Amino acid sequence: MADTATPLRVPAQKLEAFIARAMEAVDVPAADAKVIAELMTRADVQGSEGHGIFRLPQYIRRIKGGAVNVRPKVKVAREAAGMALVDGDNGMGHVVMRFATEKAIEKAKTAGVAWAGVKWSNHAGPASLYASMPLEHDMIGLYLAVGNANHLPPWGGIDMLLSTNPIAVAVPAGKEPAIVLDMATTVAAYGKVKTKAQRGEMMPEGWMIDRQGKPLTDPQRANEGFLLPIGGYKGYGLALIIGLLAGTLNGAAMGRDVVDFNADDTTPTNTGHVIVAINIEAFQPVAEFKKSVDALVRDIRGGKRLPGVDAIRLPGEGSHTARADRQKNGIPLPPALAGALAKLAAELKIAPLA
Amino acid sequence: MADTATPLRVPAQKLEAFIARAMEAVDVPAADAKVIAELMTRADVQGSEGHGIFRLPQYIRRIKGGAVNVRPKVKVAREAAGMALVDGDNGMGHVVMRFATEKAIEKAKTAGVAWAGVKWSNHAGPASLYASMPLEHDMIGLYLAVGNANHLPPWGGIDMLLSTNPIAVAVPAGKEPAIVLDMATTVAAYGKVKTKAQRGEMMPEGWMIDRQGKPLTDPQRANEGFLLPIGGYKGYGLALIIGLLAGTLNGAAMGRDVVDFNADDTTPTNTGHVIVAINIEAFQPVAEFKKSVDALVRDIRGGKRLPGVDAIRLPGEGSHTARADRQKNGIPLPPALAGALAKLAAELKIAPLA
Repeated sequence: MADTATPLRVPAQKLEAFIARAMEAVDVPAADAKVIAELMTRADVQGSEGHGIFRLPQYIRRIKGGAVNVRPKVKVAREAAGMALVDGDNGMGHVVMRFATEKAIEKAKTAGVAWAGVKWSNHAGPASLYASMPLEHDMIGLYLAVGNANHLPPWGGIDMLLSTNPIAVAVPAGKEPAIVLDMATTVAAYGKVKTKAQRGEMMPEGWMIDRQGKPLTDPQRANEGFLLPIGGYKGYGLALIIGLLAGTLNGAAMGRDVVDFNADDTTPTNTGHVIVAINIEAFQPVAEFKKSVDALVRDIRGGKRLPGVDAIRLPGEGSHTARADRQKNGIPLPPALAGALAKLAAELKIAPLA
Repeated sequence: MADTATPLRVPAQKLEAFIARAMEAVDVPAADAKVIAELMTRADVQGSEGHGIFRLPQYIRRIKGGAVNVRPKVKVAREAAGMALVDGDNGMGHVVMRFATEKAIEKAKTAGVAWAGVKWSNHAGPASLYASMPLEHDMIGLYLAVGNANHLPPWGGIDMLLSTNPIAVAVPAGKEPAIVLDMATTVAAYGKVKTKAQRGEMMPEGWMIDRQGKPLTDPQRANEGFLLPIGGYKGYGLALIIGLLAGTLNGAAMGRDVVDFNADDTTPTNTGHVIVAINIEAFQPVAEFKKSVDALVRDIRGGKRLPGVDAIRLPGEGSHTARADRQKNGIPLPPALAGALAKLAAELKIAPLA
């Protein structure tokens, strides 16, 4: 095993094959295992480490615990020209969201814009995965979701009724890479707090406060406090609205009904999402739009900078860089994760990753 | 005239009639003048002072300067089942946005969700006006816009290529008041900076920085710096994405093409907006949805609070309170504004407000 300074690099194909093996070992049909493996690997390739193979042991644990339906009948429960409501039948989020996103894309071909709400889904990995799917159809993708654990109280409160409810939007460009925003409505995602704890580092002020409203900077004490929303009451408002659109409107969990999927291996989460596909062609010639986005990207990137700033970045640039590196050099696998995956392979009696 | 401590209160009907008179005096057709007057007054009634009659002298100045078309042919330029692209023909934003919102509502009745993009519009007042229009049809409204002056640079930059691009979402409840989020993607809207300057007050740190990246707290020096986005690079990403959806996608101004409508009385702004109408009935029975929203609102409002916090508020509560007060007691008119309106009346040779 590699030392901590230079973690093992694993080719994406190996990662993907391992995830598929693990999923099939817990009775996920081969076709669905392939979808899950492909999307989880795509998360790791784009640098969303907290949402890729890192989640595999937890997913398997919840499947074994009976919290997730491995043979769901994903279906359209309600439909109109500009929308669909997808019932995920408690299937793996990746399978459900792939279905819903394809549905939105298909409908947007004629409707111009199509909104797909989703209920009875599960954690589906990084938001940008689904927002980015419409890109290859020359569409803009917009994704919203209710997070799978409440770490955010309403502004001024201490009861954690809200999650880090993320928003992702992907906009195609011409010669420039696509603009891909993927953000939690909290200053830090909870995964970042856990990473700090693992590394024995302190958090900066502004990530969390304690139940007295005082800054909380020791990640070991994270369960004594809660995350802070971006922009104070504004981020609270955004998290609430995203929860209403992705949760309540779809008949999915929101507020007190949200299940903490980190702590619970047996209860279905009824996770809600929204994916909107926006067909650029319905608004203007695609080539013209892409030219405008390119021009904007160049204006932004080429602008004057604050002292000490080396470059002005566009949303998604980090992922584009990670993707180029990881497709060529493989995906870094920290020793702790490699160990957990080796243990999982033994448990499931499947061929190990390495 | 009232003294500064207790500003004059004017009944909404008087305000509305005065605005209509002023609009007709600069050749706006009576029906459009009525729409503009009604919506501008609605802004004042809900406490959005910076977007109501306060803007009247500026609107009239821009109409006189030839920047705005007083007799526009507002029309649907492109259309599909789930979307419309509205061409405002450079009309007053209120007239254009009323048209676009009605179009979105009409389409959502059959499409379930309908997205209306808008180009060649103008400043239309507070975002929440349009997001709230779908409420009486038991629909959720979502509004995005490109602001009419760039005060925000990309994160790390100093060229002001972005505006405070707002988002507003209105969600109907049952017995509780509707949840209405209306927020700029900057920590403070520029209007707040101007108010501080007028009052001779300093700004808190975090609103603006100067071209060295240092906090700027003197509002008199506002033109030496720029606004800060909420959540740092996240708010920059949000402002950018809203600009792409409400501006670029519609063929409306974005980035370097945005006209500063405070400084310029002659150039059309080509303002872009988006209004999405989401028909709740397409997703679930309306009564069920409203019951869920009521339950959530009560959970939030009834939750435990941080020390020193007197109440947990829902987005839109401030507006609901202002509306109740102002419908009964009239709209407060600060002396400076009353003076400006008296001057305007003389200039337009119309009956004064009081």
